[in-house]
Amino acid sequence: MRPVDLEDRRDLITCGAAAGVAAAFRAPVGGVLFALEEVASWWRSALLWRTFFTTAVVAVTLRAFIQFCSTGTCGMFGEGGLIMYDVSSANVMYSASDILAVLLLGILGGIFGGLYNYGVDKVVRTYSIINERGASFKVLLVMLVSLLTSCCCFGLPWLVTCTACPSNSTESCSADSESDNYKSFQCGSGYYNDLATLLLNTNDDAIRNLFSSSTTKEFHISSLFIYFLAIYFLGIITYGIAIPSGLFIPVILAGAAYGRLVGRLFESISQLDTGLFSLLGAASLLGGTMRMTVSLCIILLELTNDLLLLPLVMLVLLISKTVADNFNKGVYDLIIIIKGLPYMEAHAESYMKHLVAVDVVSGPLVTFSGFEKVRNILYTLRTTGHNGFPVIDHPPLSDSSVLCGLVLRSHLLVLLKAKVFLTDNINSEGETLAKISALDFAKAGSGKGVKLENLDIDDEEMEMYVDLHPITNASPYTVVETMSLAKAAVLFRQLGLRHMCVVPKSQERPPIVGILTRHDLMPEHILGLLPDLNLHK
Amino acid sequence: MRPVDLEDRRDLITCGAAAGVAAAFRAPVGGVLFALEEVASWWRSALLWRTFFTTAVVAVTLRAFIQFCSTGTCGMFGEGGLIMYDVSSANVMYSASDILAVLLLGILGGIFGGLYNYGVDKVVRTYSIINERGASFKVLLVMLVSLLTSCCCFGLPWLVTCTACPSNSTESCSADSESDNYKSFQCGSGYYNDLATLLLNTNDDAIRNLFSSSTTKEFHISSLFIYFLAIYFLGIITYGIAIPSGLFIPVILAGAAYGRLVGRLFESISQLDTGLFSLLGAASLLGGTMRMTVSLCIILLELTNDLLLLPLVMLVLLISKTVADNFNKGVYDLIIIIKGLPYMEAHAESYMKHLVAVDVVSGPLVTFSGFEKVRNILYTLRTTGHNGFPVIDHPPLSDSSVLCGLVLRSHLLVLLKAKVFLTDNINSEGETLAKISALDFAKAGSGKGVKLENLDIDDEEMEMYVDLHPITNASPYTVVETMSLAKAAVLFRQLGLRHMCVVPKSQERPPIVGILTRHDLMPEHILGLLPDLNLHK
Repeated sequence: MRPVDLEDRRDLITCGAAAGVAAAFRAPVGGVLFALEEVASWWRSALLWRTFFTTAVVAVTLRAFIQFCSTGTCGMFGEGGLIMYDVSSANVMYSASDILAVLLLGILGGIFGGLYNYGVDKVVRTYSIINERGASFKVLLVMLVSLLTSCCCFGLPWLVTCTACPSNSTESCSADSESDNYKSFQCGSGYYNDLATLLLNTNDDAIRNLFSSSTTKEFHISSLFIYFLAIYFLGIITYGIAIPSGLFIPVILAGAAYGRLVGRLFESISQLDTGLFSLLGAASLLGGTMRMTVSLCIILLELTNDLLLLPLVMLVLLISKTVADNFNKGVYDLIIIIKGLPYMEAHAESYMKHLVAVDVVSGPLVTFSGFEKVRNILYTLRTTGHNGFPVIDHPPLSDSSVLCGLVLRSHLLVLLKAKVFLTDNINSEGETLAKISALDFAKAGSGKGVKLENLDIDDEEMEMYVDLHPITNASPYTVVETMSLAKAAVLFRQLGLRHMCVVPKSQERPPIVGILTRHDLMPEHILGLLPDLNLHK
Repeated sequence: MRPVDLEDRRDLITCGAAAGVAAAFRAPVGGVLFALEEVASWWRSALLWRTFFTTAVVAVTLRAFIQFCSTGTCGMFGEGGLIMYDVSSANVMYSASDILAVLLLGILGGIFGGLYNYGVDKVVRTYSIINERGASFKVLLVMLVSLLTSCCCFGLPWLVTCTACPSNSTESCSADSESDNYKSFQCGSGYYNDLATLLLNTNDDAIRNLFSSSTTKEFHISSLFIYFLAIYFLGIITYGIAIPSGLFIPVILAGAAYGRLVGRLFESISQLDTGLFSLLGAASLLGGTMRMTVSLCIILLELTNDLLLLPLVMLVLLISKTVADNFNKGVYDLIIIIKGLPYMEAHAESYMKHLVAVDVVSGPLVTFSGFEKVRNILYTLRTTGHNGFPVIDHPPLSDSSVLCGLVLRSHLLVLLKAKVFLTDNINSEGETLAKISALDFAKAGSGKGVKLENLDIDDEEMEMYVDLHPITNASPYTVVETMSLAKAAVLFRQLGLRHMCVVPKSQERPPIVGILTRHDLMPEHILGLLPDLNLHK
């Protein structure tokens, strides 16, 4: 087997994300597009093919398990089949007035989505401060949120009045059975509590109820309003506590309730089914929070199996994303910022156009010679946190000082561990390569390589030399120091680099000016180095 | 309005391709993915959003027109509604033996697809030789192919016997009407000719007939076989003649016939509907010729509205693409090669790893000084075809010769046209910028700028100077001459460059070694420069 390199690891992560979405929403193509639109910052056509293969396997496996479990042997797994919320039976005919209603739905969805992101941002920041104070605080927070959720679920239904059971329903609506779709709650036989029916069902069933087109009158406007508010705020305060909780399902629930609410309010002027309004509401809120387009479209399509709705769903997504983009960033981008991950935007910031690469080079540059003393290497590895070091050949090895390439910390450690030392600083390429194989470095690349503290090197070896040429990447990507920072950032991002060498423009100077990493290109770092930039904004 | 730059032009082309597919197949999301998978060689997330917006507009417009035309006022436009070949009513239950049949279908589809591409490649090469001989040859070729097609359509149905009209059909099956689905051809009343029903219908109706699940016995195995052969070979010989003809529809037709044929042959061991076999056959042949995955999947889904078939369609596409990839490239790649377009593969060729950037630099390097004589510029523009020229500042303008940047032919022409000349080679940046505006260059970028032959410069002006600094791109992307050619090619492709400067590694040399363009990175050029490479393969 070929060793797993950095590129493969990135691909595997992307494929994993695609497979997760494909399995969770039973949406294989949606999974591919989710990975494309949201996960991968660096896209190649080979990756499309790999994610597609992954989700195809997911789809076939899922299909087999659903068929196997269709008899009910696996609990609730596989309920609803491959299409979770089938609304394909609904009649989709719409006129100009419906389109207006849909436009309004999209605009409001964008505003609610932007507010949702604002709320999640504030809440997650607060929670991360609380969570840092210790495990007991984490547990306390989880307990508090759980308590609040329980209070809402069992308290709010008391606010609404009972509704008579629908006469035409195929599902039973009695006070006896626990597993029924209609929850009687405080109501007597022949009646049900519509809010309890939404709150006390599983999320899946609640979504199915909201999307359903045959149940127009079953949920009151007041109940939908209370339900929307409850889910919206519970969704915001739940994300970020120390239990796994998602974003998709709460947003779909809140959006579906909101859409159905709008549908009920527009009943008189729109012929569109309230169930379809519910679906469009879910789309608008998803678009407003996640800011994805194609992937959400396909995921919703694969969830609901209604291709005829596609033009409306596309329209709603376009509007809600455009509206919400005026307020803040997508929820995933906000979380990435909170976590402090150095995620590079596809587009360079505008102030970068006025800077050049050398402006953001920071810290002292640490370089190695082509033949470097073991002591120097060990000292440098201990005292700096850098992962890449330029290797420079000095005279008399070459006519003048020449940038030989870039050597990685992990590869240096492999060389030190293998003790491929020379007594003198003369060329001995054959010897070095004979002692180590490519596979040793493959392991290093996987992040599970040699640890610095595990090296055992005695004083005599400290004075020996290492030939760095065989392990030097002789073709590092370089930019001239006067290169526009915006263009350098685009290069960095498009090629998925980890290190970029900045070389001098004029001659008669050391052959390298500095090294740029992802962190050097982050706006926080640049604004920290050059605080005056804020003024020019 | 912002001027349209090169990047925007590329985006517009991609959006146009997406809109075309979206409208032709009424598949808006399929269009986005087609653009992503097949058209764009250089992808950005903004492009996803733009293509999505384009196809959303297409979808809404299409929906409005179809509704408007549903009364039949626009002829055949809008027939079938948003979903052209609705098969969603079919029952999709499959077992292990069905999967085996589907696997076989995929493998055979891959082989047929590979053969199809081989045929198209040979035929298009032959036709382009014929077409080059003049317009009369073109017309003759078209007439010959038309004649052959007509002979097939009206001759082949004589080979098959008549079939009794189905009793349960809702469509009329009489010899009188021309517009019927069932064509009587030579048969008497109450009978129809099944091959004529496929050949003499519109392509749309033929596909609908083949995909139909309610018509299992209506087409004989022998008729399907004849039809498949006819469409397969007619499809191959029709592409490349001087009339617009597509690839998608012939391949779908041939694939559907092939799939239905396999379905009929497997009738005894597979419970899958022959209509679904037909759809899977179309998928397999499409996968075998086009080699797309996600986009074909979505286009087929949007054509047929059957989400439950998705796992099987994905499986068939995976297999047929994998099988066919062993024989040759996808049909679009082959056509690009025939047309001689410098299309860069996403992955560098393996022999490029053994070369460095300077190996493929060819031709004499033409450079300009920062202040260049008008006569020299005009002479260079007349005698070379280059589009980009490095600008070098020589002493005493700088300490040593320094690469100032890259200047484009189109921008030079604007400067010459505006006659922004200096009598001496001294700095005068303000003056140059005052005489020309950014908009002049925007027009130049659109390819409709100043022509060389339209310049009118007298002898006195010939001896004057031009300050090239204001129009020089001071941040060209550069690679060191010892950079691995494979990495340089990846950089070129990922950043969508047109020129890349190769700079020397060691100092005390001119500051630029050469310029690489797309053509320099084409395999034909490299193998032409270094013929020995073929031996190392």
